[in-house]
Amino acid sequence: MSETRAVLFGVGAVGSLIAKHLLKKKGIRVVGAVDASEEMAGRDLAEVLETSPSLGVQVSRNAETVLKLTEPDIVIHATSSYLHDVFPQLSVILEHGVNIVSTCEELSYPYYSEPQLAKKIDALAKRNEATVLGTGINPGFLMDTLVIALSAVCQKIEEIEVVRVINAATRRAPFQRKIGAGLSVKAFEKALRAKQITGHVGLAESISSIASALGLKLDHIHRQPIDPIIAQRPTSSEVIHVETGQVSGLRQTAIGRCAGKDAITLRFSAYIGAEEERDAISIKGLPNVTQRITPCVNGDIGTVAIIVNAIPKVISAPPGLVTMKDLPPVSATMGL
Amino acid sequence: MSETRAVLFGVGAVGSLIAKHLLKKKGIRVVGAVDASEEMAGRDLAEVLETSPSLGVQVSRNAETVLKLTEPDIVIHATSSYLHDVFPQLSVILEHGVNIVSTCEELSYPYYSEPQLAKKIDALAKRNEATVLGTGINPGFLMDTLVIALSAVCQKIEEIEVVRVINAATRRAPFQRKIGAGLSVKAFEKALRAKQITGHVGLAESISSIASALGLKLDHIHRQPIDPIIAQRPTSSEVIHVETGQVSGLRQTAIGRCAGKDAITLRFSAYIGAEEERDAISIKGLPNVTQRITPCVNGDIGTVAIIVNAIPKVISAPPGLVTMKDLPPVSATMGL
Repeated sequence: MSETRAVLFGVGAVGSLIAKHLLKKKGIRVVGAVDASEEMAGRDLAEVLETSPSLGVQVSRNAETVLKLTEPDIVIHATSSYLHDVFPQLSVILEHGVNIVSTCEELSYPYYSEPQLAKKIDALAKRNEATVLGTGINPGFLMDTLVIALSAVCQKIEEIEVVRVINAATRRAPFQRKIGAGLSVKAFEKALRAKQITGHVGLAESISSIASALGLKLDHIHRQPIDPIIAQRPTSSEVIHVETGQVSGLRQTAIGRCAGKDAITLRFSAYIGAEEERDAISIKGLPNVTQRITPCVNGDIGTVAIIVNAIPKVISAPPGLVTMKDLPPVSATMGL
Repeated sequence: MSETRAVLFGVGAVGSLIAKHLLKKKGIRVVGAVDASEEMAGRDLAEVLETSPSLGVQVSRNAETVLKLTEPDIVIHATSSYLHDVFPQLSVILEHGVNIVSTCEELSYPYYSEPQLAKKIDALAKRNEATVLGTGINPGFLMDTLVIALSAVCQKIEEIEVVRVINAATRRAPFQRKIGAGLSVKAFEKALRAKQITGHVGLAESISSIASALGLKLDHIHRQPIDPIIAQRPTSSEVIHVETGQVSGLRQTAIGRCAGKDAITLRFSAYIGAEEERDAISIKGLPNVTQRITPCVNGDIGTVAIIVNAIPKVISAPPGLVTMKDLPPVSATMGL
């Protein structure tokens, strides 16, 4: 296979991490970079990433020009969690007939929150013979695709519970702030009301994806309010100190209900000082399946990996909007 | 979707278990059954399965007639572990243009042991517009497809180790005998030489499948000799008693080597009295991934499940020979 030509769309926190990994990857060449930021505009990508040497790729605010000049095989899209926000960006890319792998959380299973936009994206992609995938490790893998894959060994399933516990101290500083670590309970609740703390986006998408794959018609998805986790003793990360009684992070639960019962329960928590970091899946059925990844998969490293690992699968998939459960397993390359 | 019409090819130990599960399954109808056994010939399938009421499906020795009369959407094939033995059976089915899900271990990744037959099967399937898959939980899922799926979260992989430990007391009596439980060490070694004990078939197929998915070119696969596990204290299952010093089961290891290093190591053991039953995957890379299913997935229940769960994916796949890593994740149906 000849070299895959990739354009980055979004060179923010996650986009930069992806870019750095791509630059080390064989068989892929970064041929362009788009970002809305005025600060980055016109600068060499290497300068923005604080790497050297210069890459000869200028960050541009004009997606159309970059797409026209570089004719990429794939756009790596990393700008926002919400499909409504990114729809115009995706449209431009698709109109140029270019495949997309996006970190947009809602795009991992867009039929739940944005069924109309999902239809439009699918039609646009098919018309322009391009494929679109939203992925990441969560949503996109740990709390949905991996659950679907594990279900293969079951003759019967009654109930599913998935738990992800993250020690936020192992994550980027912005992530630690995003979950309210170090705030008083009062400040946390204020930030929550002001939508400065939004919590994890994707639990409902993950539940919908599992239900769809397993042919389960849900009555509804109940999203419990985001809860602060209160430190029982002082704890700290490299960037934040949390006193006893302050908030160390948050917990969120969402439940897919069917026929008056809890069918699919997802529990997510991220806080500084979490002791038993894990990604755990319990399936109650025939047989019961109790699976555990310890410690949990690091969100930044894992998301960068899965986005880049998905590229060949997206390029070879038939045109249209796809989700992870529609594709053969995305996998790493193991070179020596 | 209208009802899927299934024909059973092989109504032995595993075939019967699959049949019983299929009969309870909505959306699938068993319309025919083929078996080489003279004893079964002409008897109603229900009688052979020791269920009631009568099913109006006679077990036949003549595959051609059954396929012609029943026009199935899928054949569930469960006769032998070796592709060379089953090739004539698969050919007949494919010549009738019928899709196949098979328990044949070597068919899970036939390019390793039978590359020529694999080519022939693929051509035959394409010519007759049918799809062929060999699967099961091992080989087919626990020590290969699940490893490939988990690799998605890794930016880099150096080494993979997969361990499956089975307490044979939880399995069928023939399985317990097949692993030599209750024999003296001398009798075990004699049975091994006489090929009465063949051990688990599939480790090399699983390694090859992982290497292929991860783009790793192996130098060779080293299969260690099958080792007896000697009971350190008396132990027993419902059907076999093992004295101290007798064989309680066996262990097998296979290693995929690359550039002078162990890249992919698979360790399989099955014995009466195994305390820590598990399916464990360790990936050394960025990040490290340590995953564990406890207890291990029951082989009989799991294989029946995955064979039946694979049916819709095989029916909707493009024609040809496929392996699990080429298909979207096989998943259970979760109905209430």
